[in-house]
Amino acid sequence: MNSNIREKFFEYIVENNLVSDGEGVVVGLSGGPDSVCLLNLLCSLRQDMNLKIAAAHVNHMLRAEDADKDEEYARNLCKKFKVEFFCKRVDINKYSKDKGLSSETAGREVRYAFFDNVMERLNFSKIATAHNSNDQAETVLMRIMRGTGLEGLTGIPVKRDEKYIRPILFMERKDIEGYCKRCGLEPCIDETNNERLYRRNKVRLDILPYMKKNFNDDIITTINRMVLLLQEDNKYIMGQVDKYFIENCVKHKDEVIIYKSAFECDNAIINRIIRRAIKEVGGNKYDVEMKHIKEVISLKNMETNKKIDLPNGIYAQNIYGNIFIRIKVKNNKKKYKELVLAKEDILHKEVCFQNYIFTFEVIAFEENIDFIKNKEIKYFNYDSINGNIIIRQRKEGDKIIPLGMTGSKKIKDIFINMKIPQEDREFIPIIQFGEDIAWIVPIKLSDKYKITDETKNILKIVVRRR
Amino acid sequence: MNSNIREKFFEYIVENNLVSDGEGVVVGLSGGPDSVCLLNLLCSLRQDMNLKIAAAHVNHMLRAEDADKDEEYARNLCKKFKVEFFCKRVDINKYSKDKGLSSETAGREVRYAFFDNVMERLNFSKIATAHNSNDQAETVLMRIMRGTGLEGLTGIPVKRDEKYIRPILFMERKDIEGYCKRCGLEPCIDETNNERLYRRNKVRLDILPYMKKNFNDDIITTINRMVLLLQEDNKYIMGQVDKYFIENCVKHKDEVIIYKSAFECDNAIINRIIRRAIKEVGGNKYDVEMKHIKEVISLKNMETNKKIDLPNGIYAQNIYGNIFIRIKVKNNKKKYKELVLAKEDILHKEVCFQNYIFTFEVIAFEENIDFIKNKEIKYFNYDSINGNIIIRQRKEGDKIIPLGMTGSKKIKDIFINMKIPQEDREFIPIIQFGEDIAWIVPIKLSDKYKITDETKNILKIVVRRR
Repeated sequence: MNSNIREKFFEYIVENNLVSDGEGVVVGLSGGPDSVCLLNLLCSLRQDMNLKIAAAHVNHMLRAEDADKDEEYARNLCKKFKVEFFCKRVDINKYSKDKGLSSETAGREVRYAFFDNVMERLNFSKIATAHNSNDQAETVLMRIMRGTGLEGLTGIPVKRDEKYIRPILFMERKDIEGYCKRCGLEPCIDETNNERLYRRNKVRLDILPYMKKNFNDDIITTINRMVLLLQEDNKYIMGQVDKYFIENCVKHKDEVIIYKSAFECDNAIINRIIRRAIKEVGGNKYDVEMKHIKEVISLKNMETNKKIDLPNGIYAQNIYGNIFIRIKVKNNKKKYKELVLAKEDILHKEVCFQNYIFTFEVIAFEENIDFIKNKEIKYFNYDSINGNIIIRQRKEGDKIIPLGMTGSKKIKDIFINMKIPQEDREFIPIIQFGEDIAWIVPIKLSDKYKITDETKNILKIVVRRR
Repeated sequence: MNSNIREKFFEYIVENNLVSDGEGVVVGLSGGPDSVCLLNLLCSLRQDMNLKIAAAHVNHMLRAEDADKDEEYARNLCKKFKVEFFCKRVDINKYSKDKGLSSETAGREVRYAFFDNVMERLNFSKIATAHNSNDQAETVLMRIMRGTGLEGLTGIPVKRDEKYIRPILFMERKDIEGYCKRCGLEPCIDETNNERLYRRNKVRLDILPYMKKNFNDDIITTINRMVLLLQEDNKYIMGQVDKYFIENCVKHKDEVIIYKSAFECDNAIINRIIRRAIKEVGGNKYDVEMKHIKEVISLKNMETNKKIDLPNGIYAQNIYGNIFIRIKVKNNKKKYKELVLAKEDILHKEVCFQNYIFTFEVIAFEENIDFIKNKEIKYFNYDSINGNIIIRQRKEGDKIIPLGMTGSKKIKDIFINMKIPQEDREFIPIIQFGEDIAWIVPIKLSDKYKITDETKNILKIVVRRR
């Protein structure tokens, strides 16, 4: 019987590629039946797979002497199995109060941090926890009751981040207990498991037994089988989402652009792309509800510049049919900024404005002067400048006579033609000489200050991003 | 309050495209709150949408006088609403016993058949049934308990086959009851709904109330929201499966070929392709378990001709790396068949063999004879035939000297080279003259009976499929 279980355990490890030959595994060992069974089973493979095994125990200091007895049991078991034992004591009640967490969440946080720590100290590569198929069924039912989608229905993964593994996720609690008994192990029993304080215990003690009695004697296996199918469906859909996200979205700092092409995808895909975009700019995807997703989808068909608010200080904006998901900038950005410099004061210094650094140089015109032509270096007729040199943000009504033209053009129209998002426009510096705009940096020059044969002194302006 | 519900009802109809202007709808009317509410709501749209509405009631004769009262109530309600009323009485207890069905299944079968019948008589195009969101939650929980996958989790569809519609699937039972009360309707109450005889009633009376009390007051909405999400996921995956099925499979009568390329798809897709293939050749996809799918997948990597059995008399066979899903032919096909004909007897008659009809003709050789060259008509040197003409199935050890060659070749090898599936080989007729094979119909001719300059009389054989 136990050799049968050991065989299945080995097959499960191989099938799911949980541990490789020679790897080091930290086992989370509470001292209860699950983790004791897990440690025993892993030790049964130790020689054949050349494994390094250590155990990590957290004493939660919750049930006074009981907790100490559990620690003692775990320590002795490791001695017996010749497994290095690591222990940490944390007053979980205090910790959870300090951090404002439920004691369940606090316990999990502390345990995983400690397991990670032990793994790193030992230079191991895996952390094995003892979730079983009852835990799986309970988790999925709890999620259904709380509200979930396909991803939530995939429950506890057998492996996460190539680090956390659940090698006995295929075993039912009753088989684990039988295994321990037949091995003569006497794991600790946590009496609080039989109290209905935690929601999980209500699933364990009331809902699942009712289902088992009235509907399906094999309810745990049945739910676990469903989970395995849904894991494959979810994996497939997420793969497709990855693909479409790469093809149809661009991620910048603080912003994801969902191009209009993405909205041709099926609902199942575009919904997840929107969710992902919000997550990528720093939102919590669990705060995103279906109604937000639907709002973003209808935003796509509204006029350009239209915005909608999303949770966590994020908003979505339609910019020429593409959807920009962005973090709201605090309101102080609204203040108009300008720098006024006397024509004589500018030479040979660096002038910072917003994200740019400007340097100014006056050079005498010569026949064979070598003008460098690029976006960052521009040349102007210095002598025709009357008044101050002003570096500033755009203002309503700004106009320029573009190079090569005679009439003036609204800068707003230039921005619209170039499809520069409204949000970006205030970050484009305008260089003004006296009353005239000379340069929309770095996109458009004025005709008024161009170099001609009559030019004597040239103002060279170099701009770079800081 | 009620006008609010009517508005939502209308939006739901539009959003899901349930009924179009001027359509005729048969309402399944039990007389209970759900169907009474549905009939009332549909009647509220009758004028605006120019609907034709009729009601169909099945008296199940299960609860004696109660059943007759329900019928009477439904009849009167229709009179009041000016809706044509159709009624059918069926002794469901008797019907279910006769057919070996549960009374629930029998009831459903009879009802839908009657609704269809009324719809056709009236030349209407929709059948509306009164499923609500509690039914939806109950259905999904029952499926989870019985065992299901993504498709099962999509529950009751709001529309099926462009014919069956569920226009109040968005409403909770309590809202339906409130609506009826405020309308002064007094629908019939089925007392058996409060008995735990049916499994569904256990979900309704025990499981859902427990979940509501201990976990989520809004459990019905929560589960329905999950279902809507999963419907979109399922729709997407099924769309992908359709696409890959068309690209990688071919359906013949009694057989689906899954080409090896299909096995490069993700598990979520290939699993469903296999399931679909089995269904298409007449299997019940619900009898197909995950283990069968896995067996078919591993069959793909075995040697050619290897077979495995699937449920319902279906088997899968690897033929040169492609997987053939086929119905097992009864065992009598095993008998070897042959037809022996005297050389003199064959002329100007039709000879049937298996799926072919042969006609024979002897013509004198002339210089300018016009040989028709195709697969169905072949010419042989009649004079060199010694012995009988035999039409038969292949036998072990059969050989032929192919046209243009001098050495003989095993027919088996010819079949292998041409990748003719083993199953098909016995249906390929062999024509033998005396001791020699002259023609493997229609794929290969013998060199021995070819027409030469010395040929005097020609045997022309025409073959066609019958």
